[in-house]
Amino acid sequence: MQQQISVITLGIADLARSRRFYVEGFEWAPVFQNEEIIFYQMNGLVLGTFQRTALEADMNRPGLMTPGAFALAHNVASEVEVDPLMRRLAAAGGRILRPADAPSHGGFRGYVADPDDHAWEIAWNPGFAIDAEGRVTFGP
Amino acid sequence: MQQQISVITLGIADLARSRRFYVEGFEWAPVFQNEEIIFYQMNGLVLGTFQRTALEADMNRPGLMTPGAFALAHNVASEVEVDPLMRRLAAAGGRILRPADAPSHGGFRGYVADPDDHAWEIAWNPGFAIDAEGRVTFGP
Repeated sequence: MQQQISVITLGIADLARSRRFYVEGFEWAPVFQNEEIIFYQMNGLVLGTFQRTALEADMNRPGLMTPGAFALAHNVASEVEVDPLMRRLAAAGGRILRPADAPSHGGFRGYVADPDDHAWEIAWNPGFAIDAEGRVTFGP
Repeated sequence: MQQQISVITLGIADLARSRRFYVEGFEWAPVFQNEEIIFYQMNGLVLGTFQRTALEADMNRPGLMTPGAFALAHNVASEVEVDPLMRRLAAAGGRILRPADAPSHGGFRGYVADPDDHAWEIAWNPGFAIDAEGRVTFGP
């Protein structure tokens, strides 16, 4: 069995508002967009931002809630990149949940909520390797 | 800016119960485990299952809820692999949310909740390519 996640789909309320956070904040480019979903090609997987009601219908499960019990992390290559990215995400419609500081396990990180209240950890973490294609490996 | 997600962290209540779903159901091997977190090396990113209270403390945000407004997808190589994997996940402590059927956009998919109510879409989707290392690309 492949240890593989193909897609992360986030339920959102407003496609344009969400797009601004990901395109202006993270500076990511969509690979596909229609009136209910935007896909971004990531590092070996795909990120989807999907109208929440459509996600609920697809999942056969109404009543999805926020904030959900999960976090996504975007690791950067150095400690000094953390704060500027968090500021850019906040300026693009995000909200700072935790200003960056140094956790006991090492590195430097903070948390930003996207406009739909999904949490992103922005981290410099020397315990994870990142290659030039953005592939992340557990271990330094 | 790398279009990159480093880590997906799921908040969980019981490490052993969650581990059974991922290790026996998906047949994935942990790369690290201690008393509050398990990491799995995935396809260019890392999956973490983390005690929910510890995640809330790290995020500086109590009151994380389930079911959250998101889904993870694990795509398989053929339609006939979907049902057997869903059954194995259910036998390992998961719960079927939607039995597999054919969506209007093509392919074949169902949804299973993990023991902490996080939704996994199990899909055969000819609209996404998967290479031998499990890297997933938007487009056939």
